[in-house]
Parts: sequence; C-alpha cells; structure tokens
Amino acid sequence: MNERIRVEKSILSENDKLASAARRQFLDRSVVVLNLVSSPGAGKTSLLEKTLQALRTEIRIGLIAGDVQTENDAERLLKAGGESVWPLVTGGACHLDARMVNTVLDGVDLGKLDLLFIENVGNLVCPSSFDLGELMKVVLISTAEGDDKPLKYPAMFRRSGLMVVNKTDLLGMSDFSMQRVIDNARSINPDLEVIATSCRTGAGLEVWFAWLKRLLSPVEL
Amino acid sequence: MNERIRVEKSILSENDKLASAARRQFLDRSVVVLNLVSSPGAGKTSLLEKTLQALRTEIRIGLIAGDVQTENDAERLLKAGGESVWPLVTGGACHLDARMVNTVLDGVDLGKLDLLFIENVGNLVCPSSFDLGELMKVVLISTAEGDDKPLKYPAMFRRSGLMVVNKTDLLGMSDFSMQRVIDNARSINPDLEVIATSCRTGAGLEVWFAWLKRLLSPVEL
Repeated sequence: MNERIRVEKSILSENDKLASAARRQFLDRSVVVLNLVSSPGAGKTSLLEKTLQALRTEIRIGLIAGDVQTENDAERLLKAGGESVWPLVTGGACHLDARMVNTVLDGVDLGKLDLLFIENVGNLVCPSSFDLGELMKVVLISTAEGDDKPLKYPAMFRRSGLMVVNKTDLLGMSDFSMQRVIDNARSINPDLEVIATSCRTGAGLEVWFAWLKRLLSPVEL
Repeated sequence: MNERIRVEKSILSENDKLASAARRQFLDRSVVVLNLVSSPGAGKTSLLEKTLQALRTEIRIGLIAGDVQTENDAERLLKAGGESVWPLVTGGACHLDARMVNTVLDGVDLGKLDLLFIENVGNLVCPSSFDLGELMKVVLISTAEGDDKPLKYPAMFRRSGLMVVNKTDLLGMSDFSMQRVIDNARSINPDLEVIATSCRTGAGLEVWFAWLKRLLSPVEL
C-alpha cells in the first residue's frame, strides 16, 4: 500500500467514525437527515426553496448549505423563509466531510428540528465517498445534463436512495429521455426511487413533499 | 504541516513535474493542447463533436476523452469522425492528472497532430488543481446551470483562458443572464475570453472555430 492510499484510507476511517457519531445524535433526537448531492446547477437550492415555502409551517426544517465559495445559497434559503440555515463554505474543498458538518452541528439544537437537509458541494464525484451521518443521500439530476450521467458517475447513484430528476420543463429541448435516465440509474441501483420535478413550473413538487412527509411519519407497527 | 497536507503537496509537485515534461513535448511538436473542463453535462462532448465535423479536414485533431466510468464520450467522438480518439477512464477518480494523461501519450504520435483536446472529468472543482501540460484550460458552462457558478467555483474560472457559455438555445427558459455570468466570471478573472454557443442550433460555433484557428496560426512577427 503506497503512502497516498494509506492516508486516504485513514482519512475515510476518521470520517466514518465522526459520521457514525453524528448518525447516533440524529437518531437520538429523531431528526431525519438528507444529504443532497448533484452537479453544479441541477437545482438543489431551488428545490430547498420550494420545500421551505411549502412545508415550513408544518415541519421544522434545518438546512446546512455547503459551497466551495460564497454564502449565496444560504442567503437564498434565508429569503425563502428558512429560520435554521447554516452556511458551510469549504474554502476550496470539493466535498463536505463529517468533520466540517460537526463544526456546524456544535451550534445546532437538534431537538428543535424534524428534518435537516445538508446541501453538499455541486460535484457528482467526491461527495459520494463521504458519509455525513445522513439517513439517505438524495441525488438530483437536471434534464439539461444528459441521461447517461448515472452510468458515468455510478458511485453517486449507487449510494443514493432517491433520484430527483429536475427541470422537467426543459424536456423536449434536448435529447434527454426520462425513460433512459431511469433505466440507466436502475441498472446501477435497482432500488433507487425516482421523482420528476420542475422547480420552475411546480410540476411534481407535491410528489416530493409527500415523499418527505412519508419519511417523517412514525412507522406504524 | 500535517500528514495529509504533506502528501497532497507531494502529489501536486509530482504532477507538476510530469505536466512540465508533457508541455515541453507539446511545444517541441507544435501541438496546441486544450484542457476542457466543466460540470457534468455542460456539453464538452457535443462541442467536440461539432468541432470534429467542421474542422477535421483542415486541422489534425486528437482527443483524449476522460471519464470516471464508460467510454461513451470516446465512442461519440469516433462516430463524429475522430480518427485519433483515446478514452481515459479514471475508474473513480474525480479528475485527470498528468500521470494518467502520460499513459495515453505513450501511444500517441504527436507529430501527426495540430490540436489535442483533453476532455476532463465533469467536475468544476478538482480538475482545476491539476496541470496537464496544456496551453490553456477552456471552461464550459451551460445556461441551464445558473449564472453564479463562476463565484461558487472560482478556481476553475481563474485558471481558464476562455469561457464557453453553451446551450444558449435555453436562454429565456430560466433566470440565467448572459451579462451576469460574464460579469461574475470577469470579477474572478478579468482577462477571461468569452464565447457563447449552442451546439443544438449551431449559434456561435463559427466564433469558436475562428478562435481555434487563430490559436493555431503561426505568430506573425
């Protein structure tokens, strides 16, 4: 094992320990945590804006807005009515890791939240390797990106529980096929759930909201 | 300096050495090398397809098609008439580095090329840190991605010489403003050149072709 691989392994193992500790905290406080991942510009912040506007009176939502630079996303989420928004600027790093998220969590009263979104850096590669203690990764893909992306960035789609296909208002403007993107994604991850949305027209958002509410409902025994 | 930083520095320094050696080779053989970077799905392969179709009879073009997985892009470029196309699958890595490119260059007769495109992995963060010996990085951004991307991923726009704003056929379908994306990019890099294209309608492609031809022209003394 060369030095680089050894160091990467030790970084990941340290990350896994921190992520496990975070996951225990989230479970203890019954907070559902979703790690939102995508290419830059697929619409993570827009989806969160719509979610806040629709659900913030019935669900206590917190948001950690990760970015390489700028607090633009955090500012947009505050404007959309977010009361619990924490910017997390990586200062150049290509992904969030559990240590960075921990620095934010130190100032968060988890008892006051039902649902916590962690908006990752826009990057379809690196964030797939870093567990943040989330219940699930949700991967967004925009119809403007091409329907072969699940095949080209398989780790991200393999490690996600839900794929949101966003910008359906642009369908027909390119060769993107909804059936192909679903087939490609499920060839990587047969259990992947799929929801199609347009944050611009509002199409499909009710399905996303219902999905979130189901995730938050106590399990009936 | 902790172990991680030390290893990263040594990796970059090794990369810089290899990139410098590659750059010398390219100069010796008078090959113009462009490192194409963007988010996933911004249109790097489409732009290269159009470029091959238009210029391959007058310019000897080589293409190294980098991807995390699949040789889809290389296959598309072969179909578009590329005679010198080399797939470069990183097998999970989030960027190309000079060592990977070197493994391809070992089998390339640079004397038979005027222009070599290296199509990087779709990722607006990590590829910015790795010199491949190119003359210039060309960053693509799609109008579907949002006009604040230069501010959120500044390193990539700072280190590029040209920004191609692609998918102009989608202008008006979102809040994307051409003026804002140019202002944002030039606030990071005042010398950045800008070309707007639509690979779908063909708009602006002649400007891109003319830019390439100018780059390939011998300097008049």
